[in-house]
Amino acid sequence: MSVTWTVKVLGLGAVALTLSLELFVQLLRHLRPRTILNEVLFFPSEVACVEHILKPSPYSCLCMLPHDVETSFSRLLRHILSASSSLDLCLFAFSNMDLCSAVLALHSKGIIIRVLADSDYAAITGSQIGVLRKAGICVRCDLSSVCMHHKFAVVDDRLLLNGSLNWTLKAVQSNMENVVVTEVPDLVQPFVKEFHRLWVHSDPAQYKSSDQNHFIITKTSDEPELMNI
Amino acid sequence: MSVTWTVKVLGLGAVALTLSLELFVQLLRHLRPRTILNEVLFFPSEVACVEHILKPSPYSCLCMLPHDVETSFSRLLRHILSASSSLDLCLFAFSNMDLCSAVLALHSKGIIIRVLADSDYAAITGSQIGVLRKAGICVRCDLSSVCMHHKFAVVDDRLLLNGSLNWTLKAVQSNMENVVVTEVPDLVQPFVKEFHRLWVHSDPAQYKSSDQNHFIITKTSDEPELMNI
Repeated sequence: MSVTWTVKVLGLGAVALTLSLELFVQLLRHLRPRTILNEVLFFPSEVACVEHILKPSPYSCLCMLPHDVETSFSRLLRHILSASSSLDLCLFAFSNMDLCSAVLALHSKGIIIRVLADSDYAAITGSQIGVLRKAGICVRCDLSSVCMHHKFAVVDDRLLLNGSLNWTLKAVQSNMENVVVTEVPDLVQPFVKEFHRLWVHSDPAQYKSSDQNHFIITKTSDEPELMNI
Repeated sequence: MSVTWTVKVLGLGAVALTLSLELFVQLLRHLRPRTILNEVLFFPSEVACVEHILKPSPYSCLCMLPHDVETSFSRLLRHILSASSSLDLCLFAFSNMDLCSAVLALHSKGIIIRVLADSDYAAITGSQIGVLRKAGICVRCDLSSVCMHHKFAVVDDRLLLNGSLNWTLKAVQSNMENVVVTEVPDLVQPFVKEFHRLWVHSDPAQYKSSDQNHFIITKTSDEPELMNI
């Protein structure tokens, strides 16, 4: 084979090799899934100061609790505060004041907050649902007699927080509980859809006056159930 | 270039092409993630007969409930019954008799069952914990005063079932609840580890006689808490 032919073959080989490598890199980039957040938080959480998470300030907090400690609760707060456009809450019980402060902080930044709450527990002593309503946050309660026992939040239609943890101080500090934090679309999207379904279903405009009267009579005739398990 | 050279180059080219294709196929097989199960079940579940799931038989069930209907509850039962080696349960409340039948069926097939239950709720009327114990299933309760509020199951250290749903009839048929079903290792493995930690922690051998006496005195001095939320 002449020198000219050898050069041509080598040249073509080099081009083919470069193109193949480029193809490989593109293929790898396409096939490698992007990093999806998955985390599990277990409770009870260590008790620590969360003031610096709720209200970042140049001045150090002077309270007696441990500072600069990352706990399950501080991780939960950070995930909630990561919302940049919306936060949907579907909660059986909501009496934790730190979690309420986090929601109010997001509301004051213009994040769209929607809260679905259980009609019985929205009104009990210590519930923060009234505080949210007073701050102008839209809260809806299912007007049927069905217990709304969910404990989930969806951040920016992207991140799901769900598990056994009610948003109470006792659950955070005293109980054995869990919160699954995930961005897996196959898990997040069903919750986005279910929230939308329940939100529409709980629209007060859906209820006729006669339905409401019936509801009030039905509800006040019995004691609220203490054990909705 | 002579004919012999042309044949040799074409032959080598064909071999190179075949090897490259083979390499591509292997690479694709290696990089493509295997299908990982992710599912969300919402409740209340439609009421339907589950007899054919619990006790497959050539004879049709004659009960009045709808048959051959796939519901959230039947999906939940099928996932539990898919266990081939082990089932770990960590449950605040367990009074649902169909779920108990599923666990007993697995036990009779030789599947290793471990149950962690809340000490207060294990003894309430309707609890199935006593039924499991009588069948020879190993049940442990945390002997501290901490409320065990989890509601999760791990099948074969591979599949996680977790959410707001207690294993009661009311939760299944009447409440708004959810169960996340996932094989995502980053979500399953923390639960496997947490179950192991709680299981070891609840080992009765860990408690000295004096601790047990202290525990009994402490527990009987108060009414069981009705609202562990």
